[in-house]
Amino acid sequence: MTSEVQREDSDIATRMTLLGQQARRASSLLRSSTTQQRNEALAAMARELSTQREAVLEANARDMARGKTEGLSEALMDRLLLTPERIDAMISGLDTVASLPDPIGGIDDLRTQANGLRIGRMRTPLGVIGIIYESRPNVTVDAAALCLKAGNAAILRGGSEAFESNCAIARCIASGLERAGLPSHAVQLVETTDRAAVGALITANEYVDVIIPRGGKSLIKRISEEASIPVIKHLEGLCHIFVDRHASLDMAFDIAFNAKCFRYGICGAMETLLVDQAVAETFLPPMIARFKDAGVTVCGCDRVQALTEVEPATEEDWQTEYLGPYLSIRVVDDMHAAIEHINHYGSHHTDAIVSDHFGHTQRFLAEVDSSSVMVNAPTCFADGAQYGLGAEIGISTDKLHVRGPVGLEGLTTRKYIVLGDGHVRT
Amino acid sequence: MTSEVQREDSDIATRMTLLGQQARRASSLLRSSTTQQRNEALAAMARELSTQREAVLEANARDMARGKTEGLSEALMDRLLLTPERIDAMISGLDTVASLPDPIGGIDDLRTQANGLRIGRMRTPLGVIGIIYESRPNVTVDAAALCLKAGNAAILRGGSEAFESNCAIARCIASGLERAGLPSHAVQLVETTDRAAVGALITANEYVDVIIPRGGKSLIKRISEEASIPVIKHLEGLCHIFVDRHASLDMAFDIAFNAKCFRYGICGAMETLLVDQAVAETFLPPMIARFKDAGVTVCGCDRVQALTEVEPATEEDWQTEYLGPYLSIRVVDDMHAAIEHINHYGSHHTDAIVSDHFGHTQRFLAEVDSSSVMVNAPTCFADGAQYGLGAEIGISTDKLHVRGPVGLEGLTTRKYIVLGDGHVRT
Repeated sequence: MTSEVQREDSDIATRMTLLGQQARRASSLLRSSTTQQRNEALAAMARELSTQREAVLEANARDMARGKTEGLSEALMDRLLLTPERIDAMISGLDTVASLPDPIGGIDDLRTQANGLRIGRMRTPLGVIGIIYESRPNVTVDAAALCLKAGNAAILRGGSEAFESNCAIARCIASGLERAGLPSHAVQLVETTDRAAVGALITANEYVDVIIPRGGKSLIKRISEEASIPVIKHLEGLCHIFVDRHASLDMAFDIAFNAKCFRYGICGAMETLLVDQAVAETFLPPMIARFKDAGVTVCGCDRVQALTEVEPATEEDWQTEYLGPYLSIRVVDDMHAAIEHINHYGSHHTDAIVSDHFGHTQRFLAEVDSSSVMVNAPTCFADGAQYGLGAEIGISTDKLHVRGPVGLEGLTTRKYIVLGDGHVRT
Repeated sequence: MTSEVQREDSDIATRMTLLGQQARRASSLLRSSTTQQRNEALAAMARELSTQREAVLEANARDMARGKTEGLSEALMDRLLLTPERIDAMISGLDTVASLPDPIGGIDDLRTQANGLRIGRMRTPLGVIGIIYESRPNVTVDAAALCLKAGNAAILRGGSEAFESNCAIARCIASGLERAGLPSHAVQLVETTDRAAVGALITANEYVDVIIPRGGKSLIKRISEEASIPVIKHLEGLCHIFVDRHASLDMAFDIAFNAKCFRYGICGAMETLLVDQAVAETFLPPMIARFKDAGVTVCGCDRVQALTEVEPATEEDWQTEYLGPYLSIRVVDDMHAAIEHINHYGSHHTDAIVSDHFGHTQRFLAEVDSSSVMVNAPTCFADGAQYGLGAEIGISTDKLHVRGPVGLEGLTTRKYIVLGDGHVRT
């Protein structure tokens, strides 16, 4: 038994090494591909998806049937489901990525040094990107498109529940690549549901430059801990709105409501509302009534409880990303106390101040240590499309490399270029 | 015995946690510090170093005496040694860093979206940086200065052989911080030579944002493997010069010589020379003679051996960073073969082409996957000061976050700022 498992593991290791080598070769070839070729491949993928729509829907139906038998939750089943409309959305996503400017080859900061050397920084692909994701099959297309557009080879590892859908989509991708004259190994799907493949992928330092996990917090934590390759993490969003004593309270009323109620399940949803004590008495009773009317359960600190009837908030509430119709509210002494609360309890994702005081907004922007800091706007705007990135692969909660919504730029790196004329160093 | 070791380890863990907490608090305070305060602190450190010069030299003399007793190598003893000139260099380094523009607070790419939201990216400190380094005591000052200038708190762990020197320098740094009204915990030296402290530092995810090891390859590899915090790595430089068939051979003659012989021990030194077969017969015999005259031992591939008398190069030679008077030479079919050799055997540090052919230079720049790619300049220019960065903390061989010479910018991150006027998402 043990030897059989070992043999299987070693088979998987061999297959993953092969995938890695193929990806590395494809990545080399992509470095000399043209913008036009990469855009043509994206357009050809869109055409293939359209042509093979039925085959993809049938594969998805098989996944759905198996999911039903295995008793997947309704939420998971909904994420797994493909419909003609969802395939249309994937196709238009490909067109959007094709229409974005090529991020590769641009040169910034080219300056001439005193000795005449011209030195600048050229944007270049990262190389090979490993993407590990859960049930949504559309990620297969989105991730492939973004990686390819930025000149990277991709190794995709989707969830086992979407296995047949992903394989059908991957065939469209491969044939799109071939039609544009690009190596089909530029995008490879890991065609096994064995979990050992994930372990092999996240430790394949020789072949993979970066791992991007997409999915729940537990998946991302586990991968970050076990990977020896750098990981771009997309962890939780415990977002705050702070209503300053100099806020327009009408504006704050709408911003706070929108930040919570636009959609409960997004990482940019507000989870804690902080209110300056100078305006709490005026602001909070109608605000809390509005939340309650919308079906939001509110808990609050002592000072909130003294103003209106709410559940008592516990220490745990300040640390909880509810992702649902729940909200914690705290009255704070002033803006400094608000910043302290946010930097201490927050997840460094997205936090906002509502204020008309110039100095307060500037300090809040400078001192809140989050990937997005907002003034007079709700946290639910934290999103690549809203930021004008065209498309995003996630929202990074890391500080290094890329922070906040990750578009094409986050999938690239910059190298120095040095242009001389026979200079020597003396 | 075991329980004593365990108690010591747990003492160290407790002390490192305290250091981490103090650093985190100092980092918060630094976020609201002004450019002027940070520059004043740097100037005050310089004055302290000047005033306490004798005390620092005495501490260094004690380190040197112990090093002698312990039989440190001559190279290590030289790196450990402080002289009045080397202290002057540290002082002028502080002045240089003070005079650089503040990297913090600048806003790039601020654009107005269709809905009127203004979105940009603000440069901000990383937070807490852990620096682990070997014998040179000047790193204590350099690292402290760069971290502080970029608004970060630093935890410094120097080599045990420089312990007394580092403590004396750290006292100057602390008193400089205090004189400028900044928290003295903004720069903390780990005041123990116990190696367990390194293990605690590189896994203190709650308190430390990034680890920068400075030293030999083995130190950096070990730290990268054991750290759970992101590491900015500075690994080896296996640098190449490729002499294209369209090169000015006179220029190539001087560039290749300079790349090898400017200084053998720097990471930008050329280790392998690649020559297009079309010019090998003309170029190589005099070039090799010049290297031999300079005392460089040359090995070469079959085609080089057919031209002149050299040692045969082995597969291992193409993979070796000599850091000494040795050079491997290979004749390649054309530019593509050169790029393939570099991307396969190189360390992705710095590589150069000598060529007057526009298309060849452009392809070389685009396709060589190295942190610096040069045209008509020797690889020994790879250096932060030469690149106009003012000062550098090392040369990153990573692709993520920062690549190539790391100056102040590499010690910062960017957050999105979103400026609204009561916008809500619909």
